[in-house]
Order: sequence, then structure tokens, then C-alpha cells
Amino acid sequence: MALIVQKYGGTSVGSSERIQHVAEKVIAMRKQGHDVVVVVSAMSGETNRLVSLAKSIADPPEPREFDVILATGEQVTIGLLSIAIQAKGYAARSYTGGQVHILTDNAHNKARILEIDDKKMRADLAKGTILVVAGFQGVDEYGNITTLGRGGSDTTAVALAAALKADECQIYTDVDGVYTTDPRIEPRARRLDRISFEEMLEMASLGSKVLQIRSVEFAGKYNVPLRVLSSFEEGQGTLITSEDNIMEQALISGIAFSRDEAKLTILGVPDKPGTAYQILGPISDANIEVDMIIQNMATDGMTTDFTFTVHRNDHKKALNVLQKIAQNLGAKEVRSDEQVVKISLVGVGMRSHAGIASKMFKTLADVGINIQMISTSEIKISVAVDEKFLELGVRVLHEAFGLDKATA
Amino acid sequence: MALIVQKYGGTSVGSSERIQHVAEKVIAMRKQGHDVVVVVSAMSGETNRLVSLAKSIADPPEPREFDVILATGEQVTIGLLSIAIQAKGYAARSYTGGQVHILTDNAHNKARILEIDDKKMRADLAKGTILVVAGFQGVDEYGNITTLGRGGSDTTAVALAAALKADECQIYTDVDGVYTTDPRIEPRARRLDRISFEEMLEMASLGSKVLQIRSVEFAGKYNVPLRVLSSFEEGQGTLITSEDNIMEQALISGIAFSRDEAKLTILGVPDKPGTAYQILGPISDANIEVDMIIQNMATDGMTTDFTFTVHRNDHKKALNVLQKIAQNLGAKEVRSDEQVVKISLVGVGMRSHAGIASKMFKTLADVGINIQMISTSEIKISVAVDEKFLELGVRVLHEAFGLDKATA
Repeated sequence: MALIVQKYGGTSVGSSERIQHVAEKVIAMRKQGHDVVVVVSAMSGETNRLVSLAKSIADPPEPREFDVILATGEQVTIGLLSIAIQAKGYAARSYTGGQVHILTDNAHNKARILEIDDKKMRADLAKGTILVVAGFQGVDEYGNITTLGRGGSDTTAVALAAALKADECQIYTDVDGVYTTDPRIEPRARRLDRISFEEMLEMASLGSKVLQIRSVEFAGKYNVPLRVLSSFEEGQGTLITSEDNIMEQALISGIAFSRDEAKLTILGVPDKPGTAYQILGPISDANIEVDMIIQNMATDGMTTDFTFTVHRNDHKKALNVLQKIAQNLGAKEVRSDEQVVKISLVGVGMRSHAGIASKMFKTLADVGINIQMISTSEIKISVAVDEKFLELGVRVLHEAFGLDKATA
Repeated sequence: MALIVQKYGGTSVGSSERIQHVAEKVIAMRKQGHDVVVVVSAMSGETNRLVSLAKSIADPPEPREFDVILATGEQVTIGLLSIAIQAKGYAARSYTGGQVHILTDNAHNKARILEIDDKKMRADLAKGTILVVAGFQGVDEYGNITTLGRGGSDTTAVALAAALKADECQIYTDVDGVYTTDPRIEPRARRLDRISFEEMLEMASLGSKVLQIRSVEFAGKYNVPLRVLSSFEEGQGTLITSEDNIMEQALISGIAFSRDEAKLTILGVPDKPGTAYQILGPISDANIEVDMIIQNMATDGMTTDFTFTVHRNDHKKALNVLQKIAQNLGAKEVRSDEQVVKISLVGVGMRSHAGIASKMFKTLADVGINIQMISTSEIKISVAVDEKFLELGVRVLHEAFGLDKATA
């Protein structure tokens, strides 16, 4: 008998029928003898409806009151799911974030969980009651309603699992697990049985949007085994766990990619100490996040070229800032390119194996893909390439690193 | 400078535009230097939407969880109105029932308010903040969300006014006050400037559905001056207050009526002690409320005829019960009539003036209206008549008692 926290997203509870279906899944788990805590999101579409309503009054809405409005979405779902479970003959009880004292800071609309009081929940679980808790919300120390920001229900589930020392936190979504890469690009992409927290973080931040990054960080920090499964199909999903629990570690776990890149280059900057800061300081001041960075000496030996990537949404803004910088520094020219994508190999196995990078570069070169930029971390190698090579690049790498075959 | 509690119903906050309009009305009151607490209902249609949603899962929905769902309707409105007030440059703060500790019993879906903690509210008011409180909801002693039942927002407003010792509780509706009778029946009906709590109770329970009866009882009990006004038109509305505050008391304040009557008669019941109980006991056991009752001796001196009225919805059910009773008692016959209405004169002035009843009966007789039943209380005389006489009866009485003329 274990204690399981399950989380169902907006699509999984998007209609009365789907809520009935979730009730059956929850009860099936209870019937196996497990204690169950369920975290739910607002019904799909509901949060958008509430956002529009608030913005029709004032845009942006005042943050405290915006949270009061947004929190109702999940409150409706917890009531509906509890009614559905009870109607099928099982004890259930709903709780808002405030009712189980999910204490957060007071950063409305993007609050962080500080503490959870597990007393009430433990008493209910001891009686065999299924708990249904509103995701995405909490209260600050003065009892004001706060929300964790979009996708915060995943974080709520992990935080509850950590507070209750649950055996597993199961995140039900519309995909049946984490894949070696996006199956829409490489049909031979394979569902991973297990992946480490760190790898998942790299996969998520690079565009495999299965889980909220914050919830994975949280799960890693508190070592909560996290499982991603489908609400609609049966299956074991993918278990995200600490590296120690993954017996046979593949070299590479997956290939992530991002289409949302833009590349900016400032050419012919006089090469003096502090140049990098003089360029990136104003970019950062404009709240633009920089991803990959490279700096080369120009052929004249007196000036340098400086290239970096930003999110494509920030391209125009970054370009404006950079043009001003270029004038101030007496640089020769500014160039930019929106036709850039990033492809990344992710795997904890690369820590102990040399030659991954060279194999990656050779594989891409063999099919004529020119690498524009490279950046590496302990468990990741990323390259920027022309966007027309995205699909080809992902597929040849997927094949070269044997990702379509189960781990030996 | 006064402390004013205002309540706006679902129609008054039914759209973004209307919420903006309410924000302006609230601010206008604040600008006059008054402290303002606003109580709001769910946007019109919202409670029905939530009810259908819950019933699509299970019907009836489990009461505790039903309240969790229903309470979100008002929670959305308090957020929206607070945002609107703030956007116009005034400090505002929303509170759910739980956040200002509107403590109720645990009778979910029809809870009663036990206590309100005014500390938080007084602190906010002292800072000049406009408070926006969710109507219709509270929490029980364990922190479970409760609702007061339909129309409960009026009760919340009066309870807050009582707790805060407000100078006036203003109920904004879609009518501009309490009228001497329904203007759709008598176009010369006149808006009353003032009416006593007791008269209002009789008017409300007899079908002038301006205010919830419970809120009027509450206001009377705690002597909270209650004012009914229109959200859409300017005007002073009608002040409902204690009798002592009404200087020049008219004999009759208004004429109420009810179309929802049905009359049942059991003929030829042997006249023995306990007969009335033997008839009305089973009716009451069937949860049917009896309104007017008359009992006459039959011409033979041995048996009695017994007549009473019930709500028209209960007619069939009452008839079935009565037919069984008739068999048991060996009565001669059971008759029933759905074509019956009730017309009532209401006025505290009739306490000290004889002759009201006879004037009423003569007025009706003069135009050929046959009175089928009569019942009286200290401040009310009601008659049952054929429904075809409803309009005529109301009009001749309205004229006879000079209700179209302002109090001398």
C-alpha cells in the first residue's frame, strides 16, 4: 500500500464525461489499496475565460484581485470531481489551496510555495478518504489568495507529494510519456521508461513541454519520483527519478530542439576588456534573455565579432538595443537572422563518455548541415543551425545515437 | 460621514459594462465621504451555469461540494468589481465569506449566519479602502465553505450592516423601490418612501418579491435601516425601517396578492373534537404548507365543512392526501379549486383603526366580487377570490384606500 499523488490537467477534466472518467481512474487506484491525493487544474478553457473577463475590466488587472478570480477555476473542478467520486460510492473531500494551508509568498500571479500543512490531509487519508486538492493556488501569510502562475498545478502536485512523503507523483497529461524526441518530427521516437531529473530539465527547457520546469526542479530537490502518463490511454508512462535509480543509463536520452531562436551578430567591435559586458549589459537591462554566446577575433586582430541568440519574440527589441550599442562602441555592423533553430543532445551518460560531441558534429556534417554555433553543458550539447535543417538534423542524430532502439 | 453597506444583485453585475457602472456608483458614495462596504452576487446566469455543471455530474450533488462550486460565482464578481474600482483610482479590496469569517452553521446550501468578525473590515475602512465582500457564502467552524441559499446575498448585506453597525444597508435591484401594489396591475401604484419592517415582511411573503424575507427579518431584528433602490435609475428608493421612524403612518401601506393559491374543501366531516388535527396533521406530514383555513358547521348540525388553501404547486399532492383522509373520516366529498387568488391589505395603521375590514368587503361587494375566504392578522387582511377578479379587486381597493395619493 502506497501513497500516490495524481495530477490531472485541464484537458483531462475538460467536460463532465472526462471528470467521470478521472473519477474512475482515481477509484481504480484506491481499490488497489493505495491512499490517493488528487490535484486538478481548471477545466480547459476556463482559465482563459476568467482571464478575458478580468482583462475586459482592466488590463492588466490588479494582481491580488486577479488571483481571487483565477483561483475559482480550480475550485469548481475540485467540487465536481469530489461529487463524481462520491456518486460512485467512495469517500472524497475537496480542499482549496487555502483550506490545506498551501502557504506561499505574496508574489501574486507567480507565487512560490513555502510550506504545506499536512495535518488535515493525513487525518482524512487515515479514514480512507480520497482527497481532491485545487492545483495552482495557495494563500499568503495574511490569508490572501495567491496563484502559482500557468502550469502551477504540476508544482502543487509535487509539493503535496513532498509534504506527504508520497511514494509517487503521477502527472496525467495528453501524452503517454516522455519521448526520445518529438514523434511528429521523428516517427521512430521512442517513449522512455525512465529519465533522470536533470535530463528532464534539459528536455523541458528545450521545448519538450510535457512538464513545467519548476515542478521538475521541485521534484528533484525533494527527490519525489515523478511519473508522466496519459489520461486517455493505459500505460506505464515515463518515470522521472534520481540518477541513482536508473540502472542502465543510455549515453543519450533524447534530442530536444527549439524553433524559437533568433541570432544577432555585432561585427568589428574594438577588442578591449569589458566589451562582452558592454554588449550584454544593455540587453539584459532590457529584460531579454540570452541563450548561446560566441565571440571570435576578427581577421584584422584588432576587432572582434560577437554573436548570441535570443528568443524569437525578443528579436526586434534586441536588434534595436544592439544597434544603439554598435554606435556607442564604434562597431562596424549589426546583423541578425531569424531563420535559426537549436538542436540539443541530452544525456547524463555523456559525462563519462568522450566523443559524443565529435560524433554529433560528424553526423550533421555528413548530411551537409552547417553548424553556426555550439554550446555545451555537462549533460547537453546544443548546436544552432539553419531552420531548414531542423527535421533532417533531429532524424540523423536520432538514428546515429540509436535512440529508436531500447537501451541495451 | 456614514457607514453604508450596498448590495448589488446578479443583474446589476451581469456584464463588464454593468460592473464598471456599479464601480462608479460605489465611488460616488465614497466621494461623499462615506465608508462603503459592497456585497455582490454572482453575475446573472453564472449560478445557473454552475448548478447545471454540478448536476451533470450527480443530481442532487453532494451538499458540501455543491457549496464549494457555487461559492465561486460570487468570488469572481468580487475580484472583478475590485479591479474596476481600483482602475478608477480608488482603493478597494475583495473578501470571500471565509476571509472575513462569516461564520455559519453547517447546513450546506441553506446555512445560517452565526457570527461575523469585523476586525479586518474595520481596519480596512479606517484606511479609506472600499470593501467588496462576496454575498451568499460563509464558512462553518471547520473552515468548510457554506452557502446561504438563493437570494442569500441580501442576508449577507444585512448581516454585515448589523455587525458593522452601518447607518444604512442599500439593496440595489432592478426595481426602484417598494410600490403600493404591482404597477403592472395598477398603473397608478405609487412608490413608497418608507415602509415598516413588519409591513415589508407581509408584502414580501405575499408576492412582492423585491427582497428576500430572511433579510427583512434580519434587518428588523437588528434594526438595520434597509433601502431598496434601482441600480439603473437615480432615485431615493424605499426605506424599510422600524415603525418608530415613520412619522406619518398611512392606514394601509400596500396591497399584496398571490396567484399561486389552490383551495381544497372536505365536505360533511362528522363534527368531533380533533377533526381539524386529523385533517391538517397528514397534510403537514406531507410537507405541504397550509395558508388560509376556515371551518363551518353544515346545515345538518352534525357535520362540518373544512376549507383551506395551499400553494398551487402542492395542489395535486394535497388533493391525494385529502381524499385518503376523507375515506378514513367518513366524509361526504372532497372538492378543490385552482382558480383562486389571494388579495391582502397590509398596513400597521389598521391596528388602531377599526372599520378597515368592513370597508374592504364593501368595496369588493360593490363591484360584484364574491369573497370565498377571509383571514386576518394584526397588520393584514387577506381574502380569497376567484382569479378572474384579481386585477379588478386590486384596483378598486387601491383607489378606495387612496393609495395613489401621497400620504397626507
